[in-house]
Amino acid sequence: MKQLLYGVAYYDEYMPYERLDEDIRMMKEAGINVVRIAESTWSTHEPQNGVFDFSSVDRVLDAMHAAGIHVIVGTPTYAVPTWMVKEHPDVLAVTPRGPGKYGARQIMDITNPTYLFFAERIIRKLISRVAKHPAVIGYQTDNETKHYDTAGANVQLKFVKYMRDTYGSLDVINKRFGLDYWSNRINSWEDFPSVVGTINGSLGAEFAKFQRLLVNEFLAWQVALVNEYKQPGQFVTQNFDFEWRGYSFGVQPSVDHFAAAAPFDIAGVDIYHPSQDKLTGAEIAFGGDMTRSLKHGNYLVLETQAQAFPDWTPFPGQLRQLAFSHLASGANMVAYWHWHSIHNSFETYWKGLLSHDLGPNPVYNEAKTVGADFQRLSPELVNLRKTNKAAVLVSNEALTAMEWFKLPDGKLYNDVVRAVYDELYKLNVECDFISPLTTDLERYNLIVVPALYAAPEECLLRLNDFAQAGGHVVYTFKSGFADETVQVRQSLQPAIIQEACGVSYHLFIAPDAVSLRGPLVAEGEAPAVSSWMELLTPDTAEVLARYEHKQWGEYAAITRNRYGAGTVTYIGCLPDAGTMRKVLAGAVQEAGLWGSEQEYAFPIIVRAGINEAGKRIRYFFNYSGDEQNIAYGYEDGAELLSGASVRSGYSLKLAAWGVAIVATQL
Amino acid sequence: MKQLLYGVAYYDEYMPYERLDEDIRMMKEAGINVVRIAESTWSTHEPQNGVFDFSSVDRVLDAMHAAGIHVIVGTPTYAVPTWMVKEHPDVLAVTPRGPGKYGARQIMDITNPTYLFFAERIIRKLISRVAKHPAVIGYQTDNETKHYDTAGANVQLKFVKYMRDTYGSLDVINKRFGLDYWSNRINSWEDFPSVVGTINGSLGAEFAKFQRLLVNEFLAWQVALVNEYKQPGQFVTQNFDFEWRGYSFGVQPSVDHFAAAAPFDIAGVDIYHPSQDKLTGAEIAFGGDMTRSLKHGNYLVLETQAQAFPDWTPFPGQLRQLAFSHLASGANMVAYWHWHSIHNSFETYWKGLLSHDLGPNPVYNEAKTVGADFQRLSPELVNLRKTNKAAVLVSNEALTAMEWFKLPDGKLYNDVVRAVYDELYKLNVECDFISPLTTDLERYNLIVVPALYAAPEECLLRLNDFAQAGGHVVYTFKSGFADETVQVRQSLQPAIIQEACGVSYHLFIAPDAVSLRGPLVAEGEAPAVSSWMELLTPDTAEVLARYEHKQWGEYAAITRNRYGAGTVTYIGCLPDAGTMRKVLAGAVQEAGLWGSEQEYAFPIIVRAGINEAGKRIRYFFNYSGDEQNIAYGYEDGAELLSGASVRSGYSLKLAAWGVAIVATQL
Amino acid sequence: MKQLLYGVAYYDEYMPYERLDEDIRMMKEAGINVVRIAESTWSTHEPQNGVFDFSSVDRVLDAMHAAGIHVIVGTPTYAVPTWMVKEHPDVLAVTPRGPGKYGARQIMDITNPTYLFFAERIIRKLISRVAKHPAVIGYQTDNETKHYDTAGANVQLKFVKYMRDTYGSLDVINKRFGLDYWSNRINSWEDFPSVVGTINGSLGAEFAKFQRLLVNEFLAWQVALVNEYKQPGQFVTQNFDFEWRGYSFGVQPSVDHFAAAAPFDIAGVDIYHPSQDKLTGAEIAFGGDMTRSLKHGNYLVLETQAQAFPDWTPFPGQLRQLAFSHLASGANMVAYWHWHSIHNSFETYWKGLLSHDLGPNPVYNEAKTVGADFQRLSPELVNLRKTNKAAVLVSNEALTAMEWFKLPDGKLYNDVVRAVYDELYKLNVECDFISPLTTDLERYNLIVVPALYAAPEECLLRLNDFAQAGGHVVYTFKSGFADETVQVRQSLQPAIIQEACGVSYHLFIAPDAVSLRGPLVAEGEAPAVSSWMELLTPDTAEVLARYEHKQWGEYAAITRNRYGAGTVTYIGCLPDAGTMRKVLAGAVQEAGLWGSEQEYAFPIIVRAGINEAGKRIRYFFNYSGDEQNIAYGYEDGAELLSGASVRSGYSLKLAAWGVAIVATQL
Repeated sequence: MKQLLYGVAYYDEYMPYERLDEDIRMMKEAGINVVRIAESTWSTHEPQNGVFDFSSVDRVLDAMHAAGIHVIVGTPTYAVPTWMVKEHPDVLAVTPRGPGKYGARQIMDITNPTYLFFAERIIRKLISRVAKHPAVIGYQTDNETKHYDTAGANVQLKFVKYMRDTYGSLDVINKRFGLDYWSNRINSWEDFPSVVGTINGSLGAEFAKFQRLLVNEFLAWQVALVNEYKQPGQFVTQNFDFEWRGYSFGVQPSVDHFAAAAPFDIAGVDIYHPSQDKLTGAEIAFGGDMTRSLKHGNYLVLETQAQAFPDWTPFPGQLRQLAFSHLASGANMVAYWHWHSIHNSFETYWKGLLSHDLGPNPVYNEAKTVGADFQRLSPELVNLRKTNKAAVLVSNEALTAMEWFKLPDGKLYNDVVRAVYDELYKLNVECDFISPLTTDLERYNLIVVPALYAAPEECLLRLNDFAQAGGHVVYTFKSGFADETVQVRQSLQPAIIQEACGVSYHLFIAPDAVSLRGPLVAEGEAPAVSSWMELLTPDTAEVLARYEHKQWGEYAAITRNRYGAGTVTYIGCLPDAGTMRKVLAGAVQEAGLWGSEQEYAFPIIVRAGINEAGKRIRYFFNYSGDEQNIAYGYEDGAELLSGASVRSGYSLKLAAWGVAIVATQL
Repeated sequence: MKQLLYGVAYYDEYMPYERLDEDIRMMKEAGINVVRIAESTWSTHEPQNGVFDFSSVDRVLDAMHAAGIHVIVGTPTYAVPTWMVKEHPDVLAVTPRGPGKYGARQIMDITNPTYLFFAERIIRKLISRVAKHPAVIGYQTDNETKHYDTAGANVQLKFVKYMRDTYGSLDVINKRFGLDYWSNRINSWEDFPSVVGTINGSLGAEFAKFQRLLVNEFLAWQVALVNEYKQPGQFVTQNFDFEWRGYSFGVQPSVDHFAAAAPFDIAGVDIYHPSQDKLTGAEIAFGGDMTRSLKHGNYLVLETQAQAFPDWTPFPGQLRQLAFSHLASGANMVAYWHWHSIHNSFETYWKGLLSHDLGPNPVYNEAKTVGADFQRLSPELVNLRKTNKAAVLVSNEALTAMEWFKLPDGKLYNDVVRAVYDELYKLNVECDFISPLTTDLERYNLIVVPALYAAPEECLLRLNDFAQAGGHVVYTFKSGFADETVQVRQSLQPAIIQEACGVSYHLFIAPDAVSLRGPLVAEGEAPAVSSWMELLTPDTAEVLARYEHKQWGEYAAITRNRYGAGTVTYIGCLPDAGTMRKVLAGAVQEAGLWGSEQEYAFPIIVRAGINEAGKRIRYFFNYSGDEQNIAYGYEDGAELLSGASVRSGYSLKLAAWGVAIVATQL
Repeated sequence: MKQLLYGVAYYDEYMPYERLDEDIRMMKEAGINVVRIAESTWSTHEPQNGVFDFSSVDRVLDAMHAAGIHVIVGTPTYAVPTWMVKEHPDVLAVTPRGPGKYGARQIMDITNPTYLFFAERIIRKLISRVAKHPAVIGYQTDNETKHYDTAGANVQLKFVKYMRDTYGSLDVINKRFGLDYWSNRINSWEDFPSVVGTINGSLGAEFAKFQRLLVNEFLAWQVALVNEYKQPGQFVTQNFDFEWRGYSFGVQPSVDHFAAAAPFDIAGVDIYHPSQDKLTGAEIAFGGDMTRSLKHGNYLVLETQAQAFPDWTPFPGQLRQLAFSHLASGANMVAYWHWHSIHNSFETYWKGLLSHDLGPNPVYNEAKTVGADFQRLSPELVNLRKTNKAAVLVSNEALTAMEWFKLPDGKLYNDVVRAVYDELYKLNVECDFISPLTTDLERYNLIVVPALYAAPEECLLRLNDFAQAGGHVVYTFKSGFADETVQVRQSLQPAIIQEACGVSYHLFIAPDAVSLRGPLVAEGEAPAVSSWMELLTPDTAEVLARYEHKQWGEYAAITRNRYGAGTVTYIGCLPDAGTMRKVLAGAVQEAGLWGSEQEYAFPIIVRAGINEAGKRIRYFFNYSGDEQNIAYGYEDGAELLSGASVRSGYSLKLAAWGVAIVATQL
């Protein structure tokens, strides 16, 4: 990427009246240098089967080019036109909830050949038309692609073939998936039932994995099509997104981001997060760390919020802070969804930079300062490189397994992931994400493994080897519990890693009025345990905390074990945030990663990298509504936003919801 | 109406044993002078397709006539017989939840020709049979008619034709409804999808409006049929009802009462409300004001509760109070649903005047005193006339829009309506209801407009003119926001009324720990804001309250603007009840409507009108469990219930849950 | 039964690797002397239509026999194989929620002839094969059989015929079920609608009763099949279960246990209950008293929990306590579900005696002490006889009626049953359960009748006669209210029993801030009333408590009436637990049943019976986490677990969650 991109999603098609020139004028004023178009408007571009009208695309490309604004063109395949569904109702996905209904986006069966025929045709028509336009810098395939729970008869058939290809025989399947249970045994391929009604978590989880493969296939197919037209210098990206809990919460259940990202030139993402008093920056960091890890490099934030919902409209200063927060994680582009607030339909209250009156407003006015700073500081801030020594291992398979087997209080995999990640974030420990298939673990000193419920043996053995060789691992409860078919291991738990952890357990309990005691716990404190507790018996491990409970008080809760040249920490329960932070801080220290960043703590967040000129760029954020003065403890440098010089030992003032960016020589 | 009617719904068909003579004896004892029959019992009157048996009707008519009790005959069309559904299952409405099942009432497609054929036949048979019976004073068409969410293929087809008739072209529709969004554009009439799955709020709201038109058509068709047989002096009415939240809460979402009431001779209604300690009278006043406004005159309370639910069974005194509360709003009839508690089926715990034992009981005994008073005081109390100078403007379209676009805390249109209405009620400001189509606004001094989310431009212009000419308007937040197709207006908000209000806003927020300060707020108080807040910038308006909040403290919350010869108050948030009352009280004063009634306040409620003799009748209610002594500040008069004379300046004693009625010369 | 049975459900088919010998070794070590097999694994035994493979059964039978472990063989019919559903999808029950999906157990239409054909074939094949095997001591038919809400077209047809057979004519049906209401009248048999959509509680309740008859028929059919092969000394049992609220809560809604138990040789049951700090023993006693009452004798606990859920894993000591708790109610067998924790599928967290690692663990280790004690003490503890003088009358019909007509706060029949039963339990008043059809009431001194909402007249008359003749009855509210078709009685309430109770009421209320006062209430207390209150007017009854309420204070709440030679107590509301206990204690005293057991109270529970040697066996339980010393006030005897002698007047020490068993001569 040659420059920082500051952008918006732009829907000329949605405009209530002719606005293109005025919009571009206002964009320029705000420093917008890229727009994303076309990903939602198939029915405009192909008003009837085989009739094409790209006039809205053409005119936007021409006008943007004239204004010096880049364009990313989306393939418009994630929302299907009315004519298609009327002609071919079978393009709609049949899900466990029944046949689909026309209306929303993302309702189609992504394996349906009719849909694929139409999708290929519009992709080829559109991309071939725009590829050589000088405004176009890249493409987005589809949008927030998932499998939409497609599970109809054709998908079931495909699944049976997948099962035969993967496992070879029904004997193997019956054994590994435990199908004797409740008479679910399949003794002939023809008898393979639709798994829509299955109560077998192993089978259900395998179907979910298969559905994720459909997404990979679909996206790779789109990339291959677009690549046929792509010009030198152009990129193809995808707008990945996360588990949605009203905002971008955690690992995406329906897509294996690591696998799905493979065919793309650069990773893209949308990140939405609580704002106003609830803004912490954690989701921005989480989404950024994840997306940067997909292709080990910079990434594009294709969507994030401008005003958005009534409870997200940023406080003064927050829009600036957010933009730089994305850069601090390695983003090269920050784009808002979307330029203008939409006057009809569904997302009327997901407001854009402009309110419905389409004039300037306080948020737009703040964006102008961001645009100006991005432009001015682009040479210093673009292409930030990071070399993190800590990583968090996440797994779609573990996530799915914990949807089938929820913790007693209903908590899910991502709750555990966030319980771990958020404390690392607050400790200013920057980290990458890795997957169960990652093999080059030696890049890291510390690997944190939340709730690795289901994983292949090789993954666990690699982690054992990593520790043996001097690495440091932190596991939470449930790790090692089941294999990749969600069959609980029959060895002593935590299975496979038991020796490395130096503990074992037979029993696990839903904690009720249980707290912690022991070396890790300060005098007079009794931090609570929630969600889960394993009754650990230490073998070679040192006990960091025990349970405080009349009956379970003899058992260990959190342990640390020397294993070969490394250490393995095991957290057998879900402790409170403070205890989690202490355990992780200890592991960071063990791993030799405790540094000056750890002298700060949330709400002061420090994130850093190396820029193209080889300078270290350090972002200092104040995620609070109170002005903060922090001691600057690094080399002398320059604060880029103000231009002021910064000297070691002096204090750095951060406004409420403020940011400072200090460049220093390495 | 020549006399007050005191009645019950009577179901001879449901009686477990022969009771007619005994029932009539007990009715006479209670002063019951009207019964409503036949609206629920089609299967009794037409036991087989084309076989009729009106013996239960005949015998009841004869017996009632002999006893001097009037009868209102209902057309029995809102609950269909088993044989009809067995023969023609397509009479059941197909709804978004799928095909219907036999069992409940109100499950049919009111556009289905088979249903209409059978309905017409039973109506003609029944009404032609009874029309000349001397007991019959009027008719009720169907019962609590709605569209029952009918949305099957035939209804969708009809909707497409409606859309073409209304908007002419798909270009217009695509533009006004914003169908480019998410590829929903319709480029050929054949492609028009069922809107059952639509995510487009504009389209969804239009379908809801269309469904309300089906109700109008259906009722007008029934009225025309009945009118063919109606004799001089007889009336046709409909039993309207309200949004149901376990009781009659607010504006009916599925029926446009103003339009639907047109063909009827007199408006009828059912009103149910919390009771015991939760009794306030507000629902009785709300429902009464609304129903009186439909045809600008007296109305019939065709159903209200006797004992009803276990949490509604009235405290001693409340049944009396309720009966007179209805009269105080302009009712000429108060009828209980129903005479006897039903021994089987579904509404077993919706008890009538009689308990299941069918003997006298405390509630029945109290009804006897009501009946006697009604009879005695009928000449004074019947045909009460009201000429209110305040009105509340309500809108089905705004209601539907806010179902699509709920407030962040889930609140709906009627929550805002009631937030406004209830404070007027507690201030003893009697008001009418008007609709967005009402043109003779000059009848009023003050018009209160809660959350007029979606409205045609003409309506807003009329309100501007009204204020300009010296009227007083109070708007709450969201007014002016969108046009009648729920397209958000592109002008500065509050659109169209912005100049009249003298404020504007770009941003709106879901309040979190926000309170009010400013002239309206008393020293030391910090009344909370909930649900919604618009960040108002006053232009010409005076600020009545600002937000107390670190970030939004600069913005106005409630303003008042002189506009022409009038004033326009704008409430940009949902304040607490006390603040709402203060704002409304101020507007009442501005409008010159502050009078002696406002010296009282809830739980003392005063409602008044002019009787046929030209005397002013004032009802004084004590909606509390504690006896109250109030200062009587009006002309000397007579308390009708006791016969005592009442002198100005003296005190009037109101028992717990008591009522006094004072007649004075004008 | 010749000995106490201590067992597990054993699924050789589910084992992840060959374990049979090791399992048997560990079972023997734990004193397990019986296993239950085969009830869940049809697809293993009949892998294809007509292809049978009983090798897993054969090998288990042989191995168990060799080890001296008995086997109970289940008919494997409650979970159907994949091939059956693929070939004949109509074997799945069509329910009100629509067609079924393959996956879970208990999804079939138990009236479907295809299913019945296959079920009969596998039963005959399996039972004929194993009947003469020396390991087999008995059979279980199906498992936790219910009707699974089967309600498809064939079932509706059968229901119409049932209605005609039962009631003769539509005139009777229309009258008794109140079908005139809402036009539901049926005037021709062909018009009988599916009752799936019915809103008529009488009709809905009758359908529920009919569905329970289907269960009786199905089970009797299975028993007859098995009986063809049963050898002398073998038994046939059924695994009954209870209303499930996350554990065995109350009367089973879908099965009439009294009727369904008739064809069996011995009653069997599964009982699951809260554990850890929430363990009270009440569910064990409730389930035991119920199951013992079914066939007036000892019973089998075919399933109860070992480790089970994370919140049930027993505290040290609790597994022992639970095992003896079952014996104390008359069980001759205690078996865990299940031996080993399952590694896949659905019930992975319903852990067995063994954890997933299949090695010893603390719970298994505790089981070993139980097994040893069972074996040692079997001669003293087996075949305990009880002759209770108190009974609780429960009714499926009342239960169903209260599902249709819930209490205002949503409480159901079983809430009332448990409110009564649990206080008897805490008072150490052992009781039987009887049904509305029980005629030999003279066996009892005291009959407690919770919420007998719907009952035939004869039942109430029998209770009147019982009291008249000197018996003592305690009714709660709602008793007598409706007849067996859930038609509310038209006489004064409480109907039929009104004279016996000496009270009547017209009105009932949902209590809001109502408490009790009167003789029963101690000075300074104001125990709360919840859920329901009838406004009782005493006639001949003495008032035990009145309502404390401004409006309802004149009415009685709880009364007692001398009637003939007995007394009848009527509880017109749901009082708090303490008041309920006082009322029941009073009735126990009136009935002359107050004994030394009543000197103890929960958490000390005493339960007793006579053993085969004619000695009295008294169990003393401490259901608390604190050690207890209780005064032993009986004859001198021997504590069987310790072998220590126990003397009257001395104290008996009970460990936390401990048990003592004292044998004394009569």
